[in-house]
Amino acid sequence: MKVRSFTIDDARFEPSPGQDGGVFTANLVDERHGAPITIGYGRYDPNEGLTETMAVDDVMIVLQGSLEIMSNGISMVVGSGGIVHMPQGEAVTIIAQGEGATTAYVTYPHWREAR
Amino acid sequence: MKVRSFTIDDARFEPSPGQDGGVFTANLVDERHGAPITIGYGRYDPNEGLTETMAVDDVMIVLQGSLEIMSNGISMVVGSGGIVHMPQGEAVTIIAQGEGATTAYVTYPHWREAR
Repeated sequence: MKVRSFTIDDARFEPSPGQDGGVFTANLVDERHGAPITIGYGRYDPNEGLTETMAVDDVMIVLQGSLEIMSNGISMVVGSGGIVHMPQGEAVTIIAQGEGATTAYVTYPHWREAR
Repeated sequence: MKVRSFTIDDARFEPSPGQDGGVFTANLVDERHGAPITIGYGRYDPNEGLTETMAVDDVMIVLQGSLEIMSNGISMVVGSGGIVHMPQGEAVTIIAQGEGATTAYVTYPHWREAR
């Protein structure tokens, strides 16, 4: 497996599985490449988001816009340059602020089967 | 382990171990927190960098500035919003461009023992 770099232009966004809409993901590296981790870009439309119990450890880096993260009764607003760590087993709600948001994500292990 | 968020203001930068200078790291989450991954911020002074063979899978997200990455005879320049995947076992040289760079990183497994 070689060193690779990516920009948002490499992302082929698709609706995030199991979500109603407005949340998109684009895996760039996953088990298809033999990696132990999944790497990708995410996009949230304005005021869209999701609620889930984390199946994996998920790290989200906010690249543009901002997101409100709610978990364990605590709310955090995370803007550009911010990092969110969502450990396996934790319940979390993510809602994009008015302008929507673009993120990078890294999960361990893989958050879904490769297609 | 609870959901946590971080900004660059949470980073306590220290010289990256084994480097001559100009490269700084700040772990935010690692085995001290029971996580399977390490999460942190990195900072590169202008024209500074490092050469190493990756002991772990390392994902670097460029938040500010830009870096030149050289590996396997290929050179890539990665700017803000770009992602670099450096798989375990690969040799890589990283040099910050003129203005230096700030990054976020996620490694699996942990890239060093917690202190």
